[in-house]
Amino acid sequence: MMQANINEDLLGHLGEIGVIQLIQQFFPDHPLHVKKGIGDDCAVVDIGGEELLLLTSDMLVEGIHYHTETSSYEDIGWKALAVNLSDIAAMGGTPHTAFLSMGLRPSTTVSTLELFMRGFQKMACEAMVFLAGGDTVAVKSDAVISVTVLGRCHPEGLIYRSGARFGDDIWVSGFLGNAAGGLEILLRNEDKQVRGRRALISSHQRPVPRLTLGKALGKSGLVHAMIDLSDGIAKDLRHICDESNVGAVLDRASIPLSEPLKIFAQDLLRDPFDWAINGGEDYELLFTSSPEDRNKIEELTFSVLGKPATRIGLVVKERGLWLQVGNMKTQLPHGGYTHF
Amino acid sequence: MMQANINEDLLGHLGEIGVIQLIQQFFPDHPLHVKKGIGDDCAVVDIGGEELLLLTSDMLVEGIHYHTETSSYEDIGWKALAVNLSDIAAMGGTPHTAFLSMGLRPSTTVSTLELFMRGFQKMACEAMVFLAGGDTVAVKSDAVISVTVLGRCHPEGLIYRSGARFGDDIWVSGFLGNAAGGLEILLRNEDKQVRGRRALISSHQRPVPRLTLGKALGKSGLVHAMIDLSDGIAKDLRHICDESNVGAVLDRASIPLSEPLKIFAQDLLRDPFDWAINGGEDYELLFTSSPEDRNKIEELTFSVLGKPATRIGLVVKERGLWLQVGNMKTQLPHGGYTHF
Repeated sequence: MMQANINEDLLGHLGEIGVIQLIQQFFPDHPLHVKKGIGDDCAVVDIGGEELLLLTSDMLVEGIHYHTETSSYEDIGWKALAVNLSDIAAMGGTPHTAFLSMGLRPSTTVSTLELFMRGFQKMACEAMVFLAGGDTVAVKSDAVISVTVLGRCHPEGLIYRSGARFGDDIWVSGFLGNAAGGLEILLRNEDKQVRGRRALISSHQRPVPRLTLGKALGKSGLVHAMIDLSDGIAKDLRHICDESNVGAVLDRASIPLSEPLKIFAQDLLRDPFDWAINGGEDYELLFTSSPEDRNKIEELTFSVLGKPATRIGLVVKERGLWLQVGNMKTQLPHGGYTHF
Repeated sequence: MMQANINEDLLGHLGEIGVIQLIQQFFPDHPLHVKKGIGDDCAVVDIGGEELLLLTSDMLVEGIHYHTETSSYEDIGWKALAVNLSDIAAMGGTPHTAFLSMGLRPSTTVSTLELFMRGFQKMACEAMVFLAGGDTVAVKSDAVISVTVLGRCHPEGLIYRSGARFGDDIWVSGFLGNAAGGLEILLRNEDKQVRGRRALISSHQRPVPRLTLGKALGKSGLVHAMIDLSDGIAKDLRHICDESNVGAVLDRASIPLSEPLKIFAQDLLRDPFDWAINGGEDYELLFTSSPEDRNKIEELTFSVLGKPATRIGLVVKERGLWLQVGNMKTQLPHGGYTHF
């Protein structure tokens, strides 16, 4: 006889969003001190001071989220922290304290941990973040790294995913697809000495979180919604649309592609656009703001980055994600990285 | 040829303390906002408000830190949160927000996660803690659970491990060894229906963090140092001694043992003292205070627990841990649970 109320379906079938919704339903009512719970780049907690507390946490599994074939341990340490700092940047916040929990095999060499820590330390120094705790345990198989970062933000400088408005411009900082191109060079074991390829590889191995830009955009009061591009624009822009109850049209021709990426794509007879849309891990900031503020956004981003952000699309009323190619408008397929 | 400066020694040889020291040396200088980093039950961060922020994080690995043979998934969910709340209690703090990161196999059933979440939720409700985020990823082998809890505390109510003074009494709440006894019942598949055994099993499966007591002790201003008993008193008391630069003498006859534990030990012809000293996972509070305040401590603990805390030893000048049995004083061997 079957037991009642037992759901023998598997998490793998439920998928990432299903798993998160399952967890979330056990805590339906936000208490007053939690300004934002599950569903943004960071949780936002009011701890009584002038500023709000931001907290973000990422779990990385060996062989799934990082690969020792394509990254050194120093790269892995850098990136484990960088991806969390990028979440703080995407809220307009300033990170200050990190926590590092690791499940490591006892057969790991001391040098491996030292290299990892050196990379972690370098990123921490650049962002002026201090490691204040965590946990260290032994595992029997794949290593697991869980990094938590605390940040702070004035309530007026905070930018959620949920603020995008019908008619907004969609902007993105830097170039898209560089990290995916760099990974491709490593996976195909292509010649790394060709001019420009080192930069692509670095985009994959040592992403630089857009902390100064995120903070400046938050302070400016010009931005309605923001997210960092971790899983690919096809998926991350969808988060903004879902949380804001809007749709978006991307202009294919406007997607910013770097020269080295275009050249590498040409060498492989590939279209670099796929990397830019579905590749993920660029850790650039994607944000929306009013068309009236176009000049201000260009000036502000130019002053921080030395290169203005790129306007790549438009927020529309109708739910969904479209791609504009010339006069053609097609639905953008679900893409990007899924974690479950 | 060997590369220079490469340490091929293994983390398993370095041991838990060695691994923590290795990590710590990359962040030698505390910035001003970090009041306490690695080396206490919680990190303490000054985030600008009236109260200090406490943060604690525990990583649990399937088959190492929890076992599905001796605990239900609901138990595991409860305990994953409870052990972190116990760390907040050990500082005199009040927990308010939790974060849950999980690495789960895609072949895990939905029911398993639901049961886990139900246990987590029950503990959260009892402690009035809200789940505000985390991360969910897929793993290929053993599941990993990483829980982070935020708490708050007025600076005057905060109790570190490092405050124990020569001449202090050493106190412990509740009974010791119950959790280890309960685990023994489960591992030996002993009859669970014998009177008192359910309580021992519950001590192992559903520990109750001493939040009210921890807070009351912090507020009282009577306590010099405090820790929660997670790894066994032989190891946890050593932490207090190391951080406070003192030694301790435990009085064997004073160790509080519950009647059910004594009866179960008798049935097995075992000495329950081993469970009390090395068993761990009792999540009782161990603290030190001045002999002048004995009556006040007894009154306060009685008013919170309905049973006064037990005086089990004395803080001494000479470094080391001793056990007093009648007139004999012997060194307490290193014991308790080591994580690496």
